[in-house]
Amino acid sequence: MATENRRIVLASRPVGVPKPSDFRLERAPIPAPADGECLVRSHYLSVDPYMRGRISGRKSYAEPVGIGEVIVGAAVGEVLESRSGRVAAGQFVTGALGWQEHSCVPAKALRVVDPDAAPLSAYLGVLGMPGLTAYYGLLRVAGVEAGETVCVSGAAGAVGSAVGQIARLHGCRAVGIAGGPRKCGWVSSELGFEAAVDYKADGFPAALRAAVPDGIDVYFDNVGGPVTDAVFHRLNVRSRVAICGQISQYNAVDAPLGPRLLWHFIVKRIRAEGFLVFDFREHDRTALAQMAEWVSSGKLQYRETVAQGLENAPSAFIGMLGGANIGKQVVRLVA
Amino acid sequence: MATENRRIVLASRPVGVPKPSDFRLERAPIPAPADGECLVRSHYLSVDPYMRGRISGRKSYAEPVGIGEVIVGAAVGEVLESRSGRVAAGQFVTGALGWQEHSCVPAKALRVVDPDAAPLSAYLGVLGMPGLTAYYGLLRVAGVEAGETVCVSGAAGAVGSAVGQIARLHGCRAVGIAGGPRKCGWVSSELGFEAAVDYKADGFPAALRAAVPDGIDVYFDNVGGPVTDAVFHRLNVRSRVAICGQISQYNAVDAPLGPRLLWHFIVKRIRAEGFLVFDFREHDRTALAQMAEWVSSGKLQYRETVAQGLENAPSAFIGMLGGANIGKQVVRLVA
Repeated sequence: MATENRRIVLASRPVGVPKPSDFRLERAPIPAPADGECLVRSHYLSVDPYMRGRISGRKSYAEPVGIGEVIVGAAVGEVLESRSGRVAAGQFVTGALGWQEHSCVPAKALRVVDPDAAPLSAYLGVLGMPGLTAYYGLLRVAGVEAGETVCVSGAAGAVGSAVGQIARLHGCRAVGIAGGPRKCGWVSSELGFEAAVDYKADGFPAALRAAVPDGIDVYFDNVGGPVTDAVFHRLNVRSRVAICGQISQYNAVDAPLGPRLLWHFIVKRIRAEGFLVFDFREHDRTALAQMAEWVSSGKLQYRETVAQGLENAPSAFIGMLGGANIGKQVVRLVA
Repeated sequence: MATENRRIVLASRPVGVPKPSDFRLERAPIPAPADGECLVRSHYLSVDPYMRGRISGRKSYAEPVGIGEVIVGAAVGEVLESRSGRVAAGQFVTGALGWQEHSCVPAKALRVVDPDAAPLSAYLGVLGMPGLTAYYGLLRVAGVEAGETVCVSGAAGAVGSAVGQIARLHGCRAVGIAGGPRKCGWVSSELGFEAAVDYKADGFPAALRAAVPDGIDVYFDNVGGPVTDAVFHRLNVRSRVAICGQISQYNAVDAPLGPRLLWHFIVKRIRAEGFLVFDFREHDRTALAQMAEWVSSGKLQYRETVAQGLENAPSAFIGMLGGANIGKQVVRLVA
């Protein structure tokens, strides 16, 4: 058993694209759990787009990570020691454990997961926050109905790949937007989206138009920027836009400019709504049960890009912000 | 009685700010009503921001006015002759009569109004489309609740002036944004808005911030552009934006650029929705009865800017697009 804890802290606030030097690997003694806490050894870390906001100094829906503090994020692992009646040593749990190999957290902040029902890493993706995000955004925010055309940007990501499949499970036509033929091929050939459009290819707006001959009823936006600008031109009357992420803008240094979009809202009576997954927390149990059933019956597929070793979490994160991953990006901490 | 009809037709599609030469005054015989129609002599014409869209060639929610066609728009006047059992000669009516002194229209497309209950011109403003727009946008689209802070742009216009007053009648704090001290003075001193902020003055964003110490819960947007950009920074979590108009953009030749706004939606879980007044038509009777009661009891005030003579409709329209009017801009056609 390890005798030291390795963790990654914020060395400096990134300006623009984060650099490896914005992060620092630290060693510290493995902490001891206080009353009510568990000591957890993480097996997988999650790296997610929202973390870019947390390490900027910008005011947002959550407090930023301070310089010298461990980077926030979900992880899944094994309870080594428990000082709570809620969770026992040997159980597997997920929670906001941060970018570190060991952590002590209150047992009530952990969710016990079943390592036999799905691979551990799935609880960071399709059976975790990204899966719930897809589920709530499509069903509760956009209020999708059978027969509609659903377009999702970031379609080959952890959230987007689930969005299109859930849309199809609800009788919708799913059209994905992703970067490059490899991602588009996965989405259309393996996940069954009716179409996938490559935003990096020449003639993207025309290709998008051709892919949605009846327009778009629901747009699930993970990326923002020029991709979203093109989508707005294809939105139908009374369409809905669930605004989940704007990853194309997260590394921007100055406030990025773009075409003004609000006039579209009037002409087409568009409703757009931003959301955060934890606003729907009370429904997590039901939603996760549904997602697990779809996964186990093979109706909901997922894919992971796995980096090995805590020391590679920063590069995995930086790569993900640039679209290097297919499916959910995780970091494996165990051999 | 007049023997000829004067009307204003579209001479050329305006590029940018409309010019007087984009319009042409024509004379024609006074038409005779067909079966089911009424001949109406208009007393007042309405000029409204939406008309800028109709005379552009751009695809929108309605067909554009063709070159040589009479400019569309509401008017109120007297029925000179009726060939319908629905409406009698001598009654006063409002409808889409266009920029002309006389018109023949199907009786079923007319709404009979009471010239003793309110001045005729009010049926083009507070008791007509602009009033209904304010009512629906605030109560049905934004779903305002007592105690909230409501911000409205174009606050001294026909719609905006009603929005703030209806908000106050619902127990809200009303903050208006308008151009210049005269408009702001009217809104804050006479209409009772809690604050009015002059977007043309130096330091507008700071003044807006000071005027909404608790942020903005509902934003009713009539103008778009930089005013709306500033408002987005003051929106509260779970705020709602009713997008009614974008008058600052209507004369734009190229697609105007501005700061990207969608990230605000996520951080603050904003819901924005565009709307058109006629989407709520089934509720017009109830809404108009309520508005009429507020007007007659003095709880809802309005003001008009009146141009005299059909030949001055184009200049009144061009002036309104530049913000020359206070309250509802109308054109009086009778002496």
